[in-house]
Amino acid sequence: MGFIESVHAKAIDLTKLAVEMTAASGSGHPTSGASLAHLATVLLYRHMRHDPANPGHRGSDRLVLSEGHAVPILYAAAADLGIVAQYADDWRPTTREDVLKLRQIDSPIDGHPHPILGFPFFDAATGSLGQGLSIAAGIAAAARLDGLDRRIYCLIGDGESREGQVWEAMEFIIDHNLATACPIFNCNLYAQSAKVSPLQTPEVTEAKLKAIGFGVRVINGHDPQQIADALDAHAAAERPLAVIAKTIKGWGSQTMQAGNCHGKAFTKDECAQVLKELDETASKLGAQWTDGDLQIPPITNAEPEAPQTQDLPTFSDAMRQFGKESALAKGKWATRRAYGIALRALGLANPNVVSLDGDVRGSTFAGEFAGDEQLAERFFECRIAEQNMIGAAAGMGAGGKIPFASSFAKFLTRGYDQIEMAINSGTNFKLVGSHAGVSLAADGPSQMGLPDVAWFGAFTHVKRPDGSPAMYLLQPADAFAAYQLTARMAEHDGPCYMRTHRPDTQFLYDDNTRFVLGGHELISEGKDLLILASGYTVHEANRALDALEQAEIEATLVDLYSMPFDTAAIVDLALQNQGRVLTVEDNYSGGFGAAVAEALAADANAFTCKQMYVERIPKSGLSPADLMQHVGLSAEDIVTQATALVEVPT
Amino acid sequence: MGFIESVHAKAIDLTKLAVEMTAASGSGHPTSGASLAHLATVLLYRHMRHDPANPGHRGSDRLVLSEGHAVPILYAAAADLGIVAQYADDWRPTTREDVLKLRQIDSPIDGHPHPILGFPFFDAATGSLGQGLSIAAGIAAAARLDGLDRRIYCLIGDGESREGQVWEAMEFIIDHNLATACPIFNCNLYAQSAKVSPLQTPEVTEAKLKAIGFGVRVINGHDPQQIADALDAHAAAERPLAVIAKTIKGWGSQTMQAGNCHGKAFTKDECAQVLKELDETASKLGAQWTDGDLQIPPITNAEPEAPQTQDLPTFSDAMRQFGKESALAKGKWATRRAYGIALRALGLANPNVVSLDGDVRGSTFAGEFAGDEQLAERFFECRIAEQNMIGAAAGMGAGGKIPFASSFAKFLTRGYDQIEMAINSGTNFKLVGSHAGVSLAADGPSQMGLPDVAWFGAFTHVKRPDGSPAMYLLQPADAFAAYQLTARMAEHDGPCYMRTHRPDTQFLYDDNTRFVLGGHELISEGKDLLILASGYTVHEANRALDALEQAEIEATLVDLYSMPFDTAAIVDLALQNQGRVLTVEDNYSGGFGAAVAEALAADANAFTCKQMYVERIPKSGLSPADLMQHVGLSAEDIVTQATALVEVPT
Repeated sequence: MGFIESVHAKAIDLTKLAVEMTAASGSGHPTSGASLAHLATVLLYRHMRHDPANPGHRGSDRLVLSEGHAVPILYAAAADLGIVAQYADDWRPTTREDVLKLRQIDSPIDGHPHPILGFPFFDAATGSLGQGLSIAAGIAAAARLDGLDRRIYCLIGDGESREGQVWEAMEFIIDHNLATACPIFNCNLYAQSAKVSPLQTPEVTEAKLKAIGFGVRVINGHDPQQIADALDAHAAAERPLAVIAKTIKGWGSQTMQAGNCHGKAFTKDECAQVLKELDETASKLGAQWTDGDLQIPPITNAEPEAPQTQDLPTFSDAMRQFGKESALAKGKWATRRAYGIALRALGLANPNVVSLDGDVRGSTFAGEFAGDEQLAERFFECRIAEQNMIGAAAGMGAGGKIPFASSFAKFLTRGYDQIEMAINSGTNFKLVGSHAGVSLAADGPSQMGLPDVAWFGAFTHVKRPDGSPAMYLLQPADAFAAYQLTARMAEHDGPCYMRTHRPDTQFLYDDNTRFVLGGHELISEGKDLLILASGYTVHEANRALDALEQAEIEATLVDLYSMPFDTAAIVDLALQNQGRVLTVEDNYSGGFGAAVAEALAADANAFTCKQMYVERIPKSGLSPADLMQHVGLSAEDIVTQATALVEVPT
Repeated sequence: MGFIESVHAKAIDLTKLAVEMTAASGSGHPTSGASLAHLATVLLYRHMRHDPANPGHRGSDRLVLSEGHAVPILYAAAADLGIVAQYADDWRPTTREDVLKLRQIDSPIDGHPHPILGFPFFDAATGSLGQGLSIAAGIAAAARLDGLDRRIYCLIGDGESREGQVWEAMEFIIDHNLATACPIFNCNLYAQSAKVSPLQTPEVTEAKLKAIGFGVRVINGHDPQQIADALDAHAAAERPLAVIAKTIKGWGSQTMQAGNCHGKAFTKDECAQVLKELDETASKLGAQWTDGDLQIPPITNAEPEAPQTQDLPTFSDAMRQFGKESALAKGKWATRRAYGIALRALGLANPNVVSLDGDVRGSTFAGEFAGDEQLAERFFECRIAEQNMIGAAAGMGAGGKIPFASSFAKFLTRGYDQIEMAINSGTNFKLVGSHAGVSLAADGPSQMGLPDVAWFGAFTHVKRPDGSPAMYLLQPADAFAAYQLTARMAEHDGPCYMRTHRPDTQFLYDDNTRFVLGGHELISEGKDLLILASGYTVHEANRALDALEQAEIEATLVDLYSMPFDTAAIVDLALQNQGRVLTVEDNYSGGFGAAVAEALAADANAFTCKQMYVERIPKSGLSPADLMQHVGLSAEDIVTQATALVEVPT
């Protein structure tokens, strides 16, 4: 016998196990898995340079399963190959018994790829569709920077290829000539509720790919030789090449193909029938596994070593180094500008730092990084396509980089689903949203980040498996803080989001102030009232202090620049200020004030906490002052609220 | 003279005013406007059937400016044509003086299209890029349902055409043959930070459009005759046709074209020079306006009348009507299933109700609507492309429909940017996210809605111009509640989001219970502790009551199914329960509990509020019970927390 027969035999064996797994769990997607059986076999047993004993090897070829629901077929291969994963506290080869625990609460064999449970064969949690190719592209870009010969395969469902993000990723691959990324379309013609649109057929997909400059191989996805030839062609290609595989949902079994069985596991009786039909298919095809017909090729790269890094200069030194002495002397500088300085200094100090931006680098100041010729190679212009930018950043994180992805805070919203999936993946990436809040002024609400604090804030109370927060949300009030917090983000291994503002703001701090994740800064110490502000509103609150003093109210002002924060310390400060707390933020509700109210309300002490936030949809105005007044967050409004709070008997 | 000379004259006049407006405001995008000057002129003065005196006419042709930053050129036309808008309390024709107040805090002439300020010429707030065509497609679909002869033009920047959503919209147009939508690409070759990618050139855009079946006209976007011919061709076409206009950023003035002047207004001196150059261009071209060369064609449709609606049956009657007696008898039914019943009943009762779904209609139960042959025409399968689905729903809302767009709560995240823009637009639309929270169980976190309550919740504290909340967030605990709340959403003119759950849940209510936006239901009255739950967690809390009673704790249980809610009533209930409050929700933080903590903390009374929510990234499990235990939200966990709360001395 030979290669063909061995592939058929393995593909059928894997399909059988996937069917059994999903029958055992009572849910899952055996039919999607069957359509991928031959592709998975040729990839994992013949083409990918990987090591089942070390599935997270940083030099190995990678597989991103964009259509995450088809994962049982890959778990079946993991059991067959003994791919190492974490079972309870034990790292050991996966077994057949392990994968029959598919979807159980104490098993890492999750319903969709979920690497942080201890399954490092995958780089990315997938299952929310259309995201995998961006991640694959990011890993490919990281590998090229490291000089690693890695190929990154991505299996994409035809149904999910309707997602615009898939095409953003395709264009990113063309723009950056990431030929080592290999998009493979699994065209089984069925989505969940019906057949795919005529626009997701192999013919139209081929035309679309050619229109943007991809090489295309259209193959029968159940023909071992065609698969192998296409993958060989991809490996040899110097320009991006995609594979379109025509497949059959439920291949090998009439019972599986009857009806549209997306996401339906089989009963015990159906299962027996399906297994019987698969055996019949095997004998019809003369399927027979012969050792040696397929061999996993060895990994050609060593695991890359951590690069040499240098100490970061202070903010003042970096400003001087980059010729910004005059700005430093002025005593005013926007936090977004300081982010640019920090990003550039970080890039020069740490070869692993990379920058991505979505066609607004002149506004986010990622342009400081892009414009430095020592760093230009590590800058990725992602164009106006934020979903792909986030996915690519996640991929670069999986590839060992420290990616900073920036856009307007408003436009990062475009990638919230991708951000959540990256958090689920355990990704190390940093997001910087500029023009946050209302101080942007002239452009109006279509450019303002307003519900972002609530959204990112929700993750700050979620713990990752290592106990760290699923997200740090940071909002510096001045350039010194922005510079240092950018550095802190780079040092932390985990997701962070920093909000920056458009206008120049006064310096509040100096190089000696130490900013940390989870920290806060005491700006003014009083006894009558605690004001908690963050970012731009710190300046409004600061302006309010004088008027309050004239009204004989001694307020404590804290710059609460991090979520999560030290709740015990904030509660103590509240107690020292007669339990009166005023929070001020330039975003919609559910942000800093909500977290403070949660901390205060958890305690039986008598607190009064008034939250000031944006309670209307803003509009354009010529100055930040116009806007702060428009939404009721000016220093005068703060004085009014603070005075009312103090006058209420507690 | 003639048509050509008149178009040039008007285009140059509009450009001059746009330059002056942006110079006056000190910001804006005059060069993008200049690239659109001829297209805007031919559209507004010759091609669109509209009425400056009645710019919101429901039978008129519409213009969606996807590249919202180019709006000054359209404001210039509004001033010239006297398009009616709201100035302070006065609805009157727009003047030159009005538009010179561009971006001022008290002017409806906002930085980007912003209809709710009183500028109904636009249906949609735009400015976050790549969204306009989905909205245009939605308006076109609504017009077809109403039998209205309307054409919907959409001006798309070449830079923004990198957004995947643009191509999701294109495919939606092809799938549904919405030939009255007219995508016009403004190919001036410049994005914000640089030239566009080679993939956004007219040539590649043409190839992409042809690959998916669009007819294409490539024209010189500054040639009046070519523009008119292309628009005539579109009006005559029975299949979708797109126009690719090659344009010049800063047309008509060398000063405007020097450098990449995206988003830069001119100084007074520069402005004078630009105006001079535009005058020179005018005389070079022999530009001269002659009355009668261009005429706005009359609107051919009457304003559609409100359709006849019928009373909605009770939930029990609807279940019987649709043959679900046995489910009714079982006493259990998932809220997502009840949503399907309600949607179908609503569709039959109100011809304006439409349904959109993203290839999960069998799971969200929008399939109940789609499967009724009386309603099938009003169902829109949007495939796996949620961004376009949200935009199309917003467009249908603008077209007078009551659109319900459904997907998994997780996948709606894909459209959060679009949802916020629709809120800014004043859209009437309803979103229903199924499989919310952790009770989905087996599929794991890639399919669970977890930070959604925080995000939608942030809008529930934002007021629309009419004083209503920018969002109602609803979470029914049983099928009766889900049915009625679906009806309430349809009755309310404004954005709503309803969370539904996967598992069947026990009936708690009956047809006589009245559910309202902003309401809550008292399930059990006690005196020691107030438990506030919502949706699936109501059932866990309900289970906890017995154990608490055995521990001699009399708890009050409230089903808090709406945000915003009656804060005074909730505070009163807390006071009646010794100030002890326990909130329970199956999502990440910043949701119901945060809103409750805010309400409690605003008062000087001594409250103790403990929030229970999801504090880890969930995984798969075989049953909802597995998951509730995994994230610490089971009835047993509630008992533990409730007991601890009561034992803490208040």
